[in-house]
Amino acid sequence: MANTFGKIFRLTTFGESHGKALGGIIDGCPSGIELDFEAIQSELDRRKPGQSKIVTQRKESDKVEFLSGIFEGKTTGTSIGFIIQNEDQKPQDYSHIQDIYRPSHADFTYDKKYGLRDYRGGGRSSARETVSRVVAGAIAKQLIPTIKINAFVSSVGEIFIDKPYQALDFSLTETNDIRCPDLATAQKMEALIKEVKKQGDTVGGTITCVVQNVPIGLGEPVFDKLHAVLGSAMLSINAVKGFEYGSGFCGAKMKGSEHNDLFNADGTTQTNLSGGIQGGISNGMDIYFRVAFKPVATLLQSQTTIDKDGNVVEMLGRGRHDACVVPRAVPIVEAMTALVLVDFVLMDKHVRI
Amino acid sequence: MANTFGKIFRLTTFGESHGKALGGIIDGCPSGIELDFEAIQSELDRRKPGQSKIVTQRKESDKVEFLSGIFEGKTTGTSIGFIIQNEDQKPQDYSHIQDIYRPSHADFTYDKKYGLRDYRGGGRSSARETVSRVVAGAIAKQLIPTIKINAFVSSVGEIFIDKPYQALDFSLTETNDIRCPDLATAQKMEALIKEVKKQGDTVGGTITCVVQNVPIGLGEPVFDKLHAVLGSAMLSINAVKGFEYGSGFCGAKMKGSEHNDLFNADGTTQTNLSGGIQGGISNGMDIYFRVAFKPVATLLQSQTTIDKDGNVVEMLGRGRHDACVVPRAVPIVEAMTALVLVDFVLMDKHVRI
Amino acid sequence: MANTFGKIFRLTTFGESHGKALGGIIDGCPSGIELDFEAIQSELDRRKPGQSKIVTQRKESDKVEFLSGIFEGKTTGTSIGFIIQNEDQKPQDYSHIQDIYRPSHADFTYDKKYGLRDYRGGGRSSARETVSRVVAGAIAKQLIPTIKINAFVSSVGEIFIDKPYQALDFSLTETNDIRCPDLATAQKMEALIKEVKKQGDTVGGTITCVVQNVPIGLGEPVFDKLHAVLGSAMLSINAVKGFEYGSGFCGAKMKGSEHNDLFNADGTTQTNLSGGIQGGISNGMDIYFRVAFKPVATLLQSQTTIDKDGNVVEMLGRGRHDACVVPRAVPIVEAMTALVLVDFVLMDKHVRI
Amino acid sequence: MANTFGKIFRLTTFGESHGKALGGIIDGCPSGIELDFEAIQSELDRRKPGQSKIVTQRKESDKVEFLSGIFEGKTTGTSIGFIIQNEDQKPQDYSHIQDIYRPSHADFTYDKKYGLRDYRGGGRSSARETVSRVVAGAIAKQLIPTIKINAFVSSVGEIFIDKPYQALDFSLTETNDIRCPDLATAQKMEALIKEVKKQGDTVGGTITCVVQNVPIGLGEPVFDKLHAVLGSAMLSINAVKGFEYGSGFCGAKMKGSEHNDLFNADGTTQTNLSGGIQGGISNGMDIYFRVAFKPVATLLQSQTTIDKDGNVVEMLGRGRHDACVVPRAVPIVEAMTALVLVDFVLMDKHVRI
Repeated sequence: MANTFGKIFRLTTFGESHGKALGGIIDGCPSGIELDFEAIQSELDRRKPGQSKIVTQRKESDKVEFLSGIFEGKTTGTSIGFIIQNEDQKPQDYSHIQDIYRPSHADFTYDKKYGLRDYRGGGRSSARETVSRVVAGAIAKQLIPTIKINAFVSSVGEIFIDKPYQALDFSLTETNDIRCPDLATAQKMEALIKEVKKQGDTVGGTITCVVQNVPIGLGEPVFDKLHAVLGSAMLSINAVKGFEYGSGFCGAKMKGSEHNDLFNADGTTQTNLSGGIQGGISNGMDIYFRVAFKPVATLLQSQTTIDKDGNVVEMLGRGRHDACVVPRAVPIVEAMTALVLVDFVLMDKHVRI
Repeated sequence: MANTFGKIFRLTTFGESHGKALGGIIDGCPSGIELDFEAIQSELDRRKPGQSKIVTQRKESDKVEFLSGIFEGKTTGTSIGFIIQNEDQKPQDYSHIQDIYRPSHADFTYDKKYGLRDYRGGGRSSARETVSRVVAGAIAKQLIPTIKINAFVSSVGEIFIDKPYQALDFSLTETNDIRCPDLATAQKMEALIKEVKKQGDTVGGTITCVVQNVPIGLGEPVFDKLHAVLGSAMLSINAVKGFEYGSGFCGAKMKGSEHNDLFNADGTTQTNLSGGIQGGISNGMDIYFRVAFKPVATLLQSQTTIDKDGNVVEMLGRGRHDACVVPRAVPIVEAMTALVLVDFVLMDKHVRI
Repeated sequence: MANTFGKIFRLTTFGESHGKALGGIIDGCPSGIELDFEAIQSELDRRKPGQSKIVTQRKESDKVEFLSGIFEGKTTGTSIGFIIQNEDQKPQDYSHIQDIYRPSHADFTYDKKYGLRDYRGGGRSSARETVSRVVAGAIAKQLIPTIKINAFVSSVGEIFIDKPYQALDFSLTETNDIRCPDLATAQKMEALIKEVKKQGDTVGGTITCVVQNVPIGLGEPVFDKLHAVLGSAMLSINAVKGFEYGSGFCGAKMKGSEHNDLFNADGTTQTNLSGGIQGGISNGMDIYFRVAFKPVATLLQSQTTIDKDGNVVEMLGRGRHDACVVPRAVPIVEAMTALVLVDFVLMDKHVRI
Repeated sequence: MANTFGKIFRLTTFGESHGKALGGIIDGCPSGIELDFEAIQSELDRRKPGQSKIVTQRKESDKVEFLSGIFEGKTTGTSIGFIIQNEDQKPQDYSHIQDIYRPSHADFTYDKKYGLRDYRGGGRSSARETVSRVVAGAIAKQLIPTIKINAFVSSVGEIFIDKPYQALDFSLTETNDIRCPDLATAQKMEALIKEVKKQGDTVGGTITCVVQNVPIGLGEPVFDKLHAVLGSAMLSINAVKGFEYGSGFCGAKMKGSEHNDLFNADGTTQTNLSGGIQGGISNGMDIYFRVAFKPVATLLQSQTTIDKDGNVVEMLGRGRHDACVVPRAVPIVEAMTALVLVDFVLMDKHVRI
């Protein structure tokens, strides 16, 4: 169950960082949808390594190959199998960490849980796993074309966009390597990442996602509230430490008289501290949420750690890593958001017979 | 699917705020467990209305009646059915809101999604629904007695505990109406809630939960990471706006060299910014997380809102409500935590055959 | 997971033969359906003990009480909780079998699996459990009123209806205690059951179910083929030993040139050996299937058996039992059929977005 | 959900008869299992086309390629992705049926349900889909090596093995092309199939499966009774029309005094009409069941049918088909049995904590 996401539109994934291939199966995709394959590849390109100077220089073309469920360009309603070959594997890059537990990585926990692990590049615990999510998310987006999903980098380290999202122009997000639509802030973020990288260090950040034109009625209380599933989706992404929507943690400091969103006569609200969700169900206002990513654990600095026998060892991070994960995580956040939304759109069909 | 929580130890619930009864079915409870029924009732008493001056004065004894799955005091491995009767229903309290959409409540979204709703006390969207979670959580706690789960109120409005959790004595949590183990802070919180209540207003807050003595290896990547399911569980609780674990949103501001938890020779870590979870799997260190609750939407003040025909109406909140939800939410957070943990403990049995 | 049936319209049940109550929760019921409560009770009356001379004389009114999910007579889309109280419990009837494993009952297997069991009347393994299925099935029928589900007793022991179902008048099914629409055969069956009962013995039988006016397109290959889920539903009923649909086991003796159903120009077929299902999906023709029930294991004769310590003991069946289970199983077969169909009707909504 | 089988050890599959590849993902496979890859390939060879003169002459090597979840020969506990390339596709073989609904095939129902279909070789409705099940079943067998699963052809048309299974030597099953362990009967079956094939016709048959050395306690009442899930698994295989276990349909003719399995002092039973399952839970005796397969619908004879516009057309079956499906279905029945059993073995771990 661990590798399946969704109830109706369901993605099941497989693949390790340095195995032969990664991929997945989408089950429950509606039939008759003409797919835009370039749009799918374009999402993969947004996520792929080596796309800019500030990201890992691993070379992967990340071309997706569809094996089933599509006939003459259209979905057939049967399960969609797909794979992405691993090309630039270099497993020798990892022989030095074979017996080592890297700090704040999953080496220790995978070894203890499973009794063995594919140590090459983190194996299944690598964020490379998210490539399959991006494929499925790109298809999900095409199923709900009227819903607009825009994620962007809202902070890197201490630098953050000091504006409400309504003041931003999302069309600028893809114009810079950071994926920050506020260009002045983007420049500062880029400078910080380069500085941190030079030190062999890494830095955390946040991504904000805004979903617009959402139909009223999505969400399945009491356990599958829309924001609970969005939160779960985001927290399942590598390196995520927190999720808040609408007023979020700030809302916890407020009074009800400040926080309540008063209605307009048409059912829209004058404010939107609810973040487009009331009682776990979308109310048609913008959904917005914020996701916290910790700094990448792999440093190009010397660190003291232990091997699996408990010996203290000195390790120097090697390999090709991101100094900051958020720019490449933007399409992943969007993909998971699309997966959640398409699933709820399909589930909402059951409310009437 | 909306009303079931868990994969192996599964709770399915039913019940509206002012219906005949609420209750649930626990499926997948291991057999042969001798239940402590007083401990179950004691958890319900922690959640129940009318328990102190700062909470709603609705009078409910909240006695749980078990109907199946238990024989001669022990679980039999078959499904456990239980109900909690509603006693103090007073549906007439709600006739004035029959056609009204209260601001920041679920009235509007339930009506739009389902086409009709039980408007009495919020119906299914009422936090009274959580009574069934507390029953199941109390059983879950008894299944994993060595794991220590301690939740407490860490902030109310702008007042917060200004100490790390390690400096707190959890045995003090239940000594005050706020459920804050830092007694000086508890007093300030209580004063704030009373002040807010006097104004007919409400206030938000946060709950921190610390889980100790967790076995290594709990969590099912890639989608059912331990923290992703914990997050989903917390976000499914009424009024929750955010979830963070370990370093959380603060971690997003940090550098990797500050954030990494270096290992001791025994596999424990010197720091614990990871919050006891690496790669979605518990590492044996304390798990700690923080949950943000918005201020209660029902005010005892006049508010402008609309009715279902879009007419603007003036409404004055009535009924018996909490001015701050976090004191009564502490046992709910613990219950959901216990449900998550027991489920992962059971799932972890599959890793070997 | 063991006590939940269905994917979208999901029934979860609880309850033991001699516990306080049985019941269930229906999750995923569409909203806005005006329920006919008399029709629900009427289905329960068809299943209940004591309804005629040929069935068990246990006295139960089997009144269902709905606790949630229904407001002003209509479904609200939230989970529907319901209970049926046990009245005529007489647990003392069962003290003599407390430590005994009755032949061909579930006493031995429950004890070995769970380590303990509620021995009173078979506990959870009693067919009394099906009362909750009948409640949910009665609601399911009301959701798909155009689909006609008619089950009937097609054989008792060696006596069987020697006609195709097309020659039967289903309106006669409820006119006799056997629930056999062929009245001459019904008389023979009744005589056989009375004879068998006099001997303290029991006898098996089969039920045939015919489903008419089925929409084209129900079924979810490759694993959730319509007939696979129907088969699973039937095999989950107590005492069932076999399931066949369409040509069934006879079809395995035939040649393709005999077995193929040739099409008419309108897409109907000239014959219907397929049983209304091709490739796991309904084709709009009648679905028909047959379910085999073993003879009831409780005899009012002396039998040699063992107790839980392996001692050989003599036991004389006591209590109030059916000499033949099929008459009371007719509404159960219909209920499970309705649950399967309503679930597939809802699932079919996903095939388009 | 349609393409996933199992609760804990879960197989999700994809692939069409004439697509690029078929394959699947196994999620929930325990870690640390050293796989015998030759044994897996050997199961595929038992199922593959072209293996003998009596089966379809389509040429496929059916080599499975594992892409993840296995490291240095052992399962890692992460999801196992695998593919089988289609080699001998010849889609031109199917252009003549592009717009035609073949009798008793799934062409009509797929077209009506999904609005379009991959018509090449039946697309997803082809039994070629079962190749993925055989891969997963072969792994499942290795997880439960002490349980012995033996399926064999028990009838072809009117010819059947006239002996109880206890009189058979299962080591003879693989010595003949029919996979019938009674060699004299096998010869008659082979002659019948050759005769039928010469006529351009096809014939049905049955497979019996015997499972020995089963642990006591497998099965999850009330809905996931062991035999209910076995039945569902079998009915999900292409062309299956019926399932019975233990006494099956014959049991429905019997009296309780004949049918009850009396206990020996050690808990075994003197007879085994229960088929190794009581109350849905294995009792340690042999499990045996019988599966009915209809005759293959594709005839090499002229048949009248319709096209998708309702025009009556004459069609002559072409392509490479089996005249009788049961010999190649033997490994599929075993594979599905193994999948069911391993899942219940894993689920049974939850009964204690």
